[in-house]
Parts: sequence; C-alpha cells; structure tokens
Amino acid sequence: MWTFINDNWVDAEKASIHVSDLAIQRGYAVFDFFRTVEQKPLFIDDHLERLQHSAAVLRLKLPYTVNELKQIVLELVNRNQLSTSGIRITVTGGNAADTYTPTTPNVIITQSPLTMDAAFDAQKGITLITEEYVRELPTAKSINYLMGVYLQQKVKDAGAADVLYVKDSYVSELPRSNIFIVNQQNELITPDKNVLSGITRKHILQLAATFLSVKEQPVTLRDVLTAKEVFVSSTTKRLLPVLNVNGQPIANGNPGAVTKELYTQFLLLEKQITAVT
Amino acid sequence: MWTFINDNWVDAEKASIHVSDLAIQRGYAVFDFFRTVEQKPLFIDDHLERLQHSAAVLRLKLPYTVNELKQIVLELVNRNQLSTSGIRITVTGGNAADTYTPTTPNVIITQSPLTMDAAFDAQKGITLITEEYVRELPTAKSINYLMGVYLQQKVKDAGAADVLYVKDSYVSELPRSNIFIVNQQNELITPDKNVLSGITRKHILQLAATFLSVKEQPVTLRDVLTAKEVFVSSTTKRLLPVLNVNGQPIANGNPGAVTKELYTQFLLLEKQITAVT
Repeated sequence: MWTFINDNWVDAEKASIHVSDLAIQRGYAVFDFFRTVEQKPLFIDDHLERLQHSAAVLRLKLPYTVNELKQIVLELVNRNQLSTSGIRITVTGGNAADTYTPTTPNVIITQSPLTMDAAFDAQKGITLITEEYVRELPTAKSINYLMGVYLQQKVKDAGAADVLYVKDSYVSELPRSNIFIVNQQNELITPDKNVLSGITRKHILQLAATFLSVKEQPVTLRDVLTAKEVFVSSTTKRLLPVLNVNGQPIANGNPGAVTKELYTQFLLLEKQITAVT
Repeated sequence: MWTFINDNWVDAEKASIHVSDLAIQRGYAVFDFFRTVEQKPLFIDDHLERLQHSAAVLRLKLPYTVNELKQIVLELVNRNQLSTSGIRITVTGGNAADTYTPTTPNVIITQSPLTMDAAFDAQKGITLITEEYVRELPTAKSINYLMGVYLQQKVKDAGAADVLYVKDSYVSELPRSNIFIVNQQNELITPDKNVLSGITRKHILQLAATFLSVKEQPVTLRDVLTAKEVFVSSTTKRLLPVLNVNGQPIANGNPGAVTKELYTQFLLLEKQITAVT
C-alpha cells in the first residue's frame, strides 16, 4: 500500500512524520476523509473544498492547490488498486522548532480498505448518550478529538453506540457525525451552528428538499427527544437511525419512513456518481 | 542529539512516529516538559507524577514505570551533554488501526537546548488579552493546544504577549502558564479549578506560604484587574509580571514586590536543588 507524504510516495507501513510536527506537539492539524466506490473518490470536490476551509480557519497554508491534491488522490487510487476504501488527507501545523508556531504543513494522504454494507437494515438503529460539550473551532475539521476519544469509555459503559454533543440545551453534532430530526410537522431539521458541514449532510439536505420541508436551524435536545425520526449521517455511516437517546426511545423506537427513503435516495446518488467515468 | 522512542535511541533529526498514531489522527496524547539546569532535571519527580496523572485521565497505559522513565531521562541527559535544556516526554494514544481507539502508547523523549535568563528584569512585564475559553480535561497536560496555537494571531494583533482564558467571568490559566494575583489584603491567590497543576505553581505556593497568606480559590477577571500584583508562572518563564490586561494597567503598571521576592526565592530554590548531586 502506498502513502503520499510531501511529494514522496512511501510504503504505508513506513509512513511517518517527524516528532517536531505540531500535530504531535500541539494537536494542531486539519484533515478530511472520503470514500472510494469502485475506485472512484466520492464527493471529492466537496471534501477538498472543506479541507481548504479547515486549513484556512487554522491559518495553515495548503502547499498544494485543490487540483493538485485531486491528481495526487487519483494517482494514489491508481497505485493502490483498492475498490472500496477510505482516503484521508491530513494537513499538519508542520515541523515547528519552537514547538508552537505553525510552519509549512506536512501533507499526508493515506488510503485504507473499508467495508461498506449497502443494505439498509431496518432493525439497525443506534442508541446515543449526550454530553455537555461543543467542539472547538467547529466549522474546521481539526484533529482535535480529545473529547470524542475520551468519551468512548462513557459511551461503552452506557451500552450506547455514540455520543451527541449538547450545549446549553442545544444539540450540535456527534464526534464524527451530523444529526437530523424529522419533527411532528414532517420537516427535516439539522443544527445550523457549531457543526462541521458534513458532506453526507449536504447531499441529504439536497435530496430531502425535493420531497419535504428542510431547515437548518437551532435544534434543542427536547426537539430530538420529541421527534418523529432522528438519524445521523457521516461518510462511513451514510444514514443511521437513532432509536434511543439517554434511555428514552425516539417515537416508537423504530427507524422512520423519511430516514429509509433518504437512505435509499442517497445510495442511488452514490451509485449514479460513481458510475460516471 | 539523541531522542528516545519506544526503547530505541535515535538521531533527533530522524525521530518520527507512524502516521497512524492517535496524536496525528485525533490529537490524542499527553506530555510533560521540564528543564535541566547544569545537566540536572529540575523537579523531575513532580513532572513524572503529573505525567502519570495526565496519562491516567486519558486512560493511556504508560509502558514504563516512573522510575524507568527517570532512568531513561538521566541516560538522555548523559548522552546529549546539554547543560541548560528542555526535556519533553510525550505519551501518545498509539498506532490505531481503527484511527480512533487508544492502543499501546508511543513514548517519545526529546531534549533541546534552552536559553534561560536568570536576571529578573524589573522592567520586564507582559500584556495579556483574554478569551472566553476553558481547556478540555484541564487537569491533564494533553497535546490539545488548538485554541492556544490558533489564538496566537489574535494575541499578536493586539500587541499582547499571551492570552488569559476566562469562562463565565472566572479566569483559569494561560495556554502554557498559571496565573497568580496579590490582592489588596496582600494575599496570594491562584485559581483552584480548570487549571493544570503547574510544577512552578506548586513550588511558588510553597515558597509564598512562608511569608504571606496563600489561597487556591476561584478568581474572577475583576479580581485580576483590581489586584495589587499579577504574575504568571511556567517552567520556561519561572515568574513573569503581568502589567496590563485587555488594555487596563494592573495597579501602577510596574512589577510588584511580592512577585520580585518570589522570583528571587524561586531562583534560589532552583539553584539549591540542582546543586545537590
């Protein structure tokens, strides 16, 4: 397997960066992650645009243009010959002699095999707990997952699948997913503030707008608990129904019709896009 | 220069870790940093105890005992033959195949030259700005300095030297320093909550207790602005007077007598400790 680091193609097993890098020194870096479907990077333009945004928020100067990054990704895909995979582009704060001030970023592009199940299992829903927290610099996809990783034990102890961040009664997102609700008026709503602009989120909003009312606006925990349907979205999950939050079942505790319909449409979109040469 | 990584002694210029390490993937790692004075690690027992605490908070299993780490540090000092230096021990979340769950930590111990000025320049005081923020898992010295590094530009734009974190009107700490005030009743006060237990802070509190009233308790921004003296402490700064916060001068805008006395006493302690063989 090949990994790309700063203009070099290296054996993935030997892909390393110097310990003076600000990612290791100060957790200062951004990244993006997307899938390939039959060797085609899914929504790559969206992901590269978001990576640019993340880098800009952290004031990191991307050493490559978006088009150059795209070419490198295509070469990576061609070299590794993985059909279904995850590709991660990490842009770090660079090797910092003073261990604190960003320099020229190190750029790391890795590819790993990924298993995706296309079937939407109606029984498959998840349970969430909540935590009072909002991510730092939430519109940037920084590598700061201190709380997400830390909270894994609490999630496990609660027998839940993941954690929903709530701050002053408003929900924002999960460590690696966005959240949506369908309210009693059949409107699809997702939080507008303190969230990462998920790429799956973006396409769900576009798909949903063709058949129901869609809103990006503040969502309270109470809105979640009283919703007809709740689901989360992410690159690796697509859509996943939420059936229970903090021990309280959502509606009747089964995946809802809108969630199922959106999953079907999203899968179709994914197939259409990756069928194009 | 030598660096220690996972039982190996490597050339500092080639000291690297694999990109699957959770420090790079998720900013998940802890560290500690201390000085050597004439080749003697200063307050090493305090720092190793704090490193143990930080690792425990993040649920990282230290692969070495405190005594083993101490021996490695002494060998590092002996190999590198630097008189005045900074030593950093980083304990990461380890190489994670799933890019999210901590595994066996990577342990990195680096040493770098450090210039310390022993003279306390009475003119040398700093200006701070404030930012509404509290560190995540504040009692652990994690590598999460996302806000600290990010705020450097704001600090620079304001012509300040550093930033003081304030949350709901209570001050906690600076990105890399603790804060102290001397109030109008000549009491030395430092925040008790949401702070890293600084090793310099600890020794200042002990020194100060011999000649004035010392309290660890909540401190408001107003307490800071109305103090007789304000100073910050850290391993590389020892004590540094704060003369101005958000454009408002502290007292008469000059370093105070308690600050100067504590600096003198701290320097003496440092010399006494490192004079012992």
